[in-house]
Amino acid sequence: MKKYQIVGIGNAMVDILANTNDEFLAENGIGKGIMQLIDMDRAVSLYDRIGPAREISGGSAANTIAGVAHLGGRTAYVGKVRDDQLGHIFAHDLRAQGAVYETRMAPLETPDETGRCIVLVTPDGERSMNTYLGCTEFLHPDDIDTAMMAQAEWIYLEGYRFDGPDSHEAFARAISATKGAGGRVALTLSDPFCVERHRAAFRDMIAADVDLLFANRAEIMAMYQTDDFAAARAAAAAEVAIVVATDSENGVHVMADGAHIHVPAVPTQIVDATGAGDLFAGAFLWGLAEGHGLETCARMGNVAASEVISHIGARPETDLRAMFRQHGLL
Amino acid sequence: MKKYQIVGIGNAMVDILANTNDEFLAENGIGKGIMQLIDMDRAVSLYDRIGPAREISGGSAANTIAGVAHLGGRTAYVGKVRDDQLGHIFAHDLRAQGAVYETRMAPLETPDETGRCIVLVTPDGERSMNTYLGCTEFLHPDDIDTAMMAQAEWIYLEGYRFDGPDSHEAFARAISATKGAGGRVALTLSDPFCVERHRAAFRDMIAADVDLLFANRAEIMAMYQTDDFAAARAAAAAEVAIVVATDSENGVHVMADGAHIHVPAVPTQIVDATGAGDLFAGAFLWGLAEGHGLETCARMGNVAASEVISHIGARPETDLRAMFRQHGLL
Repeated sequence: MKKYQIVGIGNAMVDILANTNDEFLAENGIGKGIMQLIDMDRAVSLYDRIGPAREISGGSAANTIAGVAHLGGRTAYVGKVRDDQLGHIFAHDLRAQGAVYETRMAPLETPDETGRCIVLVTPDGERSMNTYLGCTEFLHPDDIDTAMMAQAEWIYLEGYRFDGPDSHEAFARAISATKGAGGRVALTLSDPFCVERHRAAFRDMIAADVDLLFANRAEIMAMYQTDDFAAARAAAAAEVAIVVATDSENGVHVMADGAHIHVPAVPTQIVDATGAGDLFAGAFLWGLAEGHGLETCARMGNVAASEVISHIGARPETDLRAMFRQHGLL
Repeated sequence: MKKYQIVGIGNAMVDILANTNDEFLAENGIGKGIMQLIDMDRAVSLYDRIGPAREISGGSAANTIAGVAHLGGRTAYVGKVRDDQLGHIFAHDLRAQGAVYETRMAPLETPDETGRCIVLVTPDGERSMNTYLGCTEFLHPDDIDTAMMAQAEWIYLEGYRFDGPDSHEAFARAISATKGAGGRVALTLSDPFCVERHRAAFRDMIAADVDLLFANRAEIMAMYQTDDFAAARAAAAAEVAIVVATDSENGVHVMADGAHIHVPAVPTQIVDATGAGDLFAGAFLWGLAEGHGLETCARMGNVAASEVISHIGARPETDLRAMFRQHGLL
């Protein structure tokens, strides 16, 4: 048995969550419902203008790994923070959830602080993300512990991390160590704009190394440059063993071994959509590592997503295993 | 018209909120439902043991002032943070709510960080507070802007701030400047253990300077060293023009001008009791400054308290003025 079921690699971030309205988004040139990268100056000036906020550890793959840990999975995370207060908050929250997190912190003298994401939540529960990457941009190949990767059944790579100068090489190193030891590689496309920025790199990785692809409707259509969701799924399924394509309230499609499974979403009152895809992936991967079938994994993912969008914050607050039992999944 | 209706002075803190259970409190020697002071070592070791948390600006008087600002009152706050990430979070959240906050930050080199309160919330909604004061302990008389105090209709003093070497003098300076310009002084006893630590100093201030005393049942009985709540209220009323004694779900007693008003609590499902007393005081003081009668002020306080205990965090998230209108108070 390998030490880890899932090791995630991604952008380590603390979320700064504030309520706002559509007018504020328009006045400040913020694209609604998407993730936009901002620099430190913009982070400071935007923060000055938003209302009272709360800080909750986030980061897409980190949320996924927190979900795996919450479920009792054997899991670890790799991502860079600085040795500052937000960095320690990030580290605490992940470890307190039960994940292993040993990535060396950037020293306090580093000009780039711990990354943060100003998440503006509108009354419809949609979140508009403004991400200052800070030092998490500089995840370096040396931060990849190849011994850890060799001990992973799955590594889970966050598409957002393609936005970093050294991270392609870091990913390559992680993939090599994992695959060399018989592990498998999952990738999430993260965001349609991220796909636009890095399509060629994504495509190369998908063709060569990815065993499981997570993408939502917009992302997979951007990836395969088509307006046809079914065609995009088919194109992905031609390249990847397991394709998991989420479609918000319309549920999720899983394509594997020539089969197509559709599982409906779990109806929920949306309070804050942050983390829905992240927790979906965490529950799906945990289910897979525990030996459940793909349909059950997808149902677990939907239940987990429904939990996390029912409250503020991108990590689970209710006992997900109990929810799985209520849904007859355990 | 004075520039400020209410200026609060207290411990500037960021709350670190985590869910826990009674067993954890017992194992870690944490007194349930009370505020206990801890040093930095204990803060670090306790933080290492708690589960995932979220960070929300707090501080008792700061919550009160946030409530006043939320209601649209003219308000300012005085309290010390360090020039670190948590300090900037504290400052942002108070200013973003509409309060004036100009206290000079302690430089980053100061060994004492921004104060924080590890708030452990049990399933019954009770909160057990573990306070590392950090640099907020060193609020100095020089931090009191006497011109600001002279511009205050009311100053609101947090009893917790008696736990600091220089703060008695700071309070004296604030009182002198406020009273010299015709303003009035409100005091909250904060906590029964705080009363035990500082009874003589409290008593002197109450007798000499306090125009409005906020206390809950346990605090006022500790103050007057009696097991009889009514007797404690009567003793306070003999010294102070307006006594406001809260009693959780049993409502609030207001004693003034020989009259005794009792107002029932607003029934609410308790999620997190943090800030109930703070928001009560904020709404009460705002009502008073706006010219409402004492009974209306008490009802406003109860409505505000019911809002803040219905969610995690000690500051309002719902439109309190709208709630006041629904209750026929505006």
